[in-house]
Amino acid sequence: MSFREELQKRTAEIEEILRGYLPAETGFQKTVLEAMNYSVTAGGKRLRPMLMQETYRMFGGEGKVIEPFMAAIEMIHTYSLVHDDLPAMDNDEYRRGRKTTHAVYGEAFGILAGDALLNFAFETAAGALCENFNEQTAKAVKILAEKAGIYGMIGGQVVDVESEGQAIGQDKLDFIYRLKTSALIESSMMIGAVLAKAGEEELEKIRQTAEDVGLAFQIQDDILDVTSTLEVLGKPIHSDDKNQKTTYVTLKGLDQAKQDVAEISRRALDTLESLKCKNPFLEELITMLITREK
Amino acid sequence: MSFREELQKRTAEIEEILRGYLPAETGFQKTVLEAMNYSVTAGGKRLRPMLMQETYRMFGGEGKVIEPFMAAIEMIHTYSLVHDDLPAMDNDEYRRGRKTTHAVYGEAFGILAGDALLNFAFETAAGALCENFNEQTAKAVKILAEKAGIYGMIGGQVVDVESEGQAIGQDKLDFIYRLKTSALIESSMMIGAVLAKAGEEELEKIRQTAEDVGLAFQIQDDILDVTSTLEVLGKPIHSDDKNQKTTYVTLKGLDQAKQDVAEISRRALDTLESLKCKNPFLEELITMLITREK
Repeated sequence: MSFREELQKRTAEIEEILRGYLPAETGFQKTVLEAMNYSVTAGGKRLRPMLMQETYRMFGGEGKVIEPFMAAIEMIHTYSLVHDDLPAMDNDEYRRGRKTTHAVYGEAFGILAGDALLNFAFETAAGALCENFNEQTAKAVKILAEKAGIYGMIGGQVVDVESEGQAIGQDKLDFIYRLKTSALIESSMMIGAVLAKAGEEELEKIRQTAEDVGLAFQIQDDILDVTSTLEVLGKPIHSDDKNQKTTYVTLKGLDQAKQDVAEISRRALDTLESLKCKNPFLEELITMLITREK
Repeated sequence: MSFREELQKRTAEIEEILRGYLPAETGFQKTVLEAMNYSVTAGGKRLRPMLMQETYRMFGGEGKVIEPFMAAIEMIHTYSLVHDDLPAMDNDEYRRGRKTTHAVYGEAFGILAGDALLNFAFETAAGALCENFNEQTAKAVKILAEKAGIYGMIGGQVVDVESEGQAIGQDKLDFIYRLKTSALIESSMMIGAVLAKAGEEELEKIRQTAEDVGLAFQIQDDILDVTSTLEVLGKPIHSDDKNQKTTYVTLKGLDQAKQDVAEISRRALDTLESLKCKNPFLEELITMLITREK
């Protein structure tokens, strides 16, 4: 089976796992449950749960305890997109080729569905904690919370929003990318490692790898925003330009940005290869990020 | 010391505890940290952390493990108010006599500060979990997540929002009140009980008490919305009327509502008194809810 076929197969398996953790659409609060499920099932690469699962496998993890955490990280990722798309934020009508959550369910339910997803991520993780009560699951819950918060994803998100229409320097842009994008990738890979009982030193190497993967991923996002099309990308292009954002491309130019993606990705792979355990699929997955077109 | 003096003293102690768990306002993400702290320090009765602490004391709890959970429940309560006040929701400019968070920091930061508070609540609780790793703290994290989510507070909140401008029946109104208000009170008192190692039967009685306390509290809120003033209440009155909401008062009339608050409060106290452990301060606190003026 080729890497692309394997990727498709594993993505489909992840879709199945995610569906198993979505709430049933019943009860008086049905509308918000529909809005949550609409947001999560809108597609996407499932990169975070996949990185989590592959890191888990790399360290010999075999149980099902990883699954609720895979669902939780995707819920957190999805809530951040739902809130990011709101009129008071990026004001985007399309995401992954479909109408955004607030465009379908209204602004109030865009806010509430996002809140509900964030909370449900922790509800799902806390359920896993009580079912598999050990130090690994406790640490996984802590990583999940920390990397999504003010010293993680939200921290990057707020600086990103605040910097719109302003010229910002490399240090602030790096801060935004490390927190806004890398933090959740770190969370994914670290939780995979922790649940498979990786040691502290291994965990730090995984964190470094993930940080670089996140950086490369985000810079590639900047590149695609100027080089791709709505049809290929499934979301509006030139949105950074529209929102007057400083990006890696505006700061360093397109060619340098492309070179840096390649270099940072290479560094990520080197760090990963320095570990004793191997996962060829994970290596190919990270390599794919350099050349992705959407 | 009178009950009122004791209440003031204990509230001040809680304020001190909460302050200790707020983030330092430094770094590129300073604005959102300020907005979070602005929201939490805007005052309020601190009823939820107080009910948590007093239930903990009632069951003989003496350690500091309760404190991060007191902070966490107040962060969750605060985030729900911050998002509830947003233009796309209740669109309120004032809360507790001060400008609401989005009125000061803008709409985007109203959304993000709310998100940040919700996440930080779980970050705080997860920190406590890893520092005090045992089944009680794990269960406390689970209760915290469940009671704030789609089968708890948010569940009630969305039905409340969706029902605006509609005539709704007693069953739906009860659902809203049990989830929107009682769920967080249940969370508070149940976490206090769990951390003090209360048994399952005691936990269920505490849950019932808390459910009734929440109901009485919410009905009293409806009563004050029609009988109080902006000055006394510290927020706009007749807001339910403005938002065309069905409330307990519009459904059953003012006199019946007042009688029901008294009856439900009495039932809450009876359930509490049926437990072996006693906490006279907690009993007085619940009694106070019947006659509160703001």
